[in-house]
Amino acid sequence: MSILVVGSVAFDTVETPFGRAERVLGGSASFFSVAASFFAPVRLVAVVGSDFGDAQLKAFRGRDIDLTGLERADGPSFHWEGRYSYDLNSRDTIRTDLNVFESFAPKIPASYRDSEHVFLGNIHPKLQREVLDQVDRPRLVACDTMNFWISGAPEELRATLARVDILLINDGEARELSGEWNLVKAARAIRAMGPRALVVKKGEHGVLMFSEDGSFAAPAFPLEDVFDPTGAGDTFAGGFMGFLASRRSADDATLRRAVVMGSTLASFCVEAFSLDRLLRLTRTEIDERYGLFKRLTHFEPL
Amino acid sequence: MSILVVGSVAFDTVETPFGRAERVLGGSASFFSVAASFFAPVRLVAVVGSDFGDAQLKAFRGRDIDLTGLERADGPSFHWEGRYSYDLNSRDTIRTDLNVFESFAPKIPASYRDSEHVFLGNIHPKLQREVLDQVDRPRLVACDTMNFWISGAPEELRATLARVDILLINDGEARELSGEWNLVKAARAIRAMGPRALVVKKGEHGVLMFSEDGSFAAPAFPLEDVFDPTGAGDTFAGGFMGFLASRRSADDATLRRAVVMGSTLASFCVEAFSLDRLLRLTRTEIDERYGLFKRLTHFEPL
Repeated sequence: MSILVVGSVAFDTVETPFGRAERVLGGSASFFSVAASFFAPVRLVAVVGSDFGDAQLKAFRGRDIDLTGLERADGPSFHWEGRYSYDLNSRDTIRTDLNVFESFAPKIPASYRDSEHVFLGNIHPKLQREVLDQVDRPRLVACDTMNFWISGAPEELRATLARVDILLINDGEARELSGEWNLVKAARAIRAMGPRALVVKKGEHGVLMFSEDGSFAAPAFPLEDVFDPTGAGDTFAGGFMGFLASRRSADDATLRRAVVMGSTLASFCVEAFSLDRLLRLTRTEIDERYGLFKRLTHFEPL
Repeated sequence: MSILVVGSVAFDTVETPFGRAERVLGGSASFFSVAASFFAPVRLVAVVGSDFGDAQLKAFRGRDIDLTGLERADGPSFHWEGRYSYDLNSRDTIRTDLNVFESFAPKIPASYRDSEHVFLGNIHPKLQREVLDQVDRPRLVACDTMNFWISGAPEELRATLARVDILLINDGEARELSGEWNLVKAARAIRAMGPRALVVKKGEHGVLMFSEDGSFAAPAFPLEDVFDPTGAGDTFAGGFMGFLASRRSADDATLRRAVVMGSTLASFCVEAFSLDRLLRLTRTEIDERYGLFKRLTHFEPL
């Protein structure tokens, strides 16, 4: 079952304590698409500028990623530049040049309308709804957002959340959206807004999922060398949605495995700059690390 | 198999967003002993002042806690006062009156010398070794410490760690002790100092254990109402050591279950001030919540 994803395809300039990468491939939809394409066909909706050429596009080629919905606009592509702290736990944005992304109005190709899985990346919640309006009958809609929309477009965001099955956000965003510090209370408040499941991403502390079947906690994989956290959350979402699409189910057991699969993909993403590690990843490596997550968390009953 | 614990028995004055508790029972050895006593006989070594009476001691009575080693000195008992932030994630110490604890020199009663499990609570590392010198042939020695000793008595601490099987500290302490930010690297460095296992407590983010068998991650139990985090780490240690003592084993599978049992006890501790929740806890409640941890973390293989 195919997945429609809308989000950004961009250039990133990233500085970590371990090096610097200049104008490399980035953007939420890029990380999402490559991660999800290990499991299911992906249909990409995004916009790039005239500076985005074959060198960049080759990341998507040879994979099950449909680029019909990748619009090319006049002007430069979205460019984000950031610098991470020595411990990688915080980052400063040096510049955000929205460029062609600023006036992005997602147009869904006719061939995408029958998509059964939809992932609404972090764009204006009004645009997220416009994407949904252009899809026939999605079986599962998941969504990301950020503080900027939570505080800046709360009514629009509420209207979108009412049409979403699963919301994936980080812990700070869950707290801001709900007005509750306690994540259990935050989850209840957010699920009352529409999503039947909430996936809270906590970076190096893993993921908490809340649904009608209770809560599920997955750790992040303890890595000795974290190189660049950029894109880890989007990669998580790609692995999560890709797995769900491949299983044609979203029951509790499948959601839990999808969370672990998302964590597995994210753990590879951070091992190198940009999509470098994802692009040379194999399904065998993925399955092996999924097994290591089992080993990492397993304990016997009393 | 009995557990010898040395640490503090104290008065705590605690302010949280939910209320204030004045001069209630606290101290690392108090939380540890009550938690561990659900699983194995505990032998307490601590000092209290003349202000510490039957009202306080009744917390220990009726449990399998041997008070032969509870010394009574002239003067007031150790008193700690602290105030938590609105989110309970940080706290300010308002005052620390060491009082009789300042000149504490643990004397191990003859009847304690055959203890097979020893927990060295957070006291001067030199005193921790003096306790070990007074025990015959412990099968398992676990230890806590804090930043104050890591920076203030590094050589003494190294000498103690060389004689310890398991070190239980928080993530900040692990980073300071090892000089490594990455916890996988920190664990390797610390295990090279002596302990064969390192248990890293991350508060609301759970626990990571590193041993020769690899790593194990356990989440904290997602509670809707966290009332007072004071003593959670010591309660974790009590549940952890108590379980190990009851199983007469410390292989990898048993260590993992001990981590979950420690997390289980800690999740009750934070539900009320002081030891209030632990003191009305039942074994049935403990076993039920252990089962909930299984449910919280379970996922199917691929």
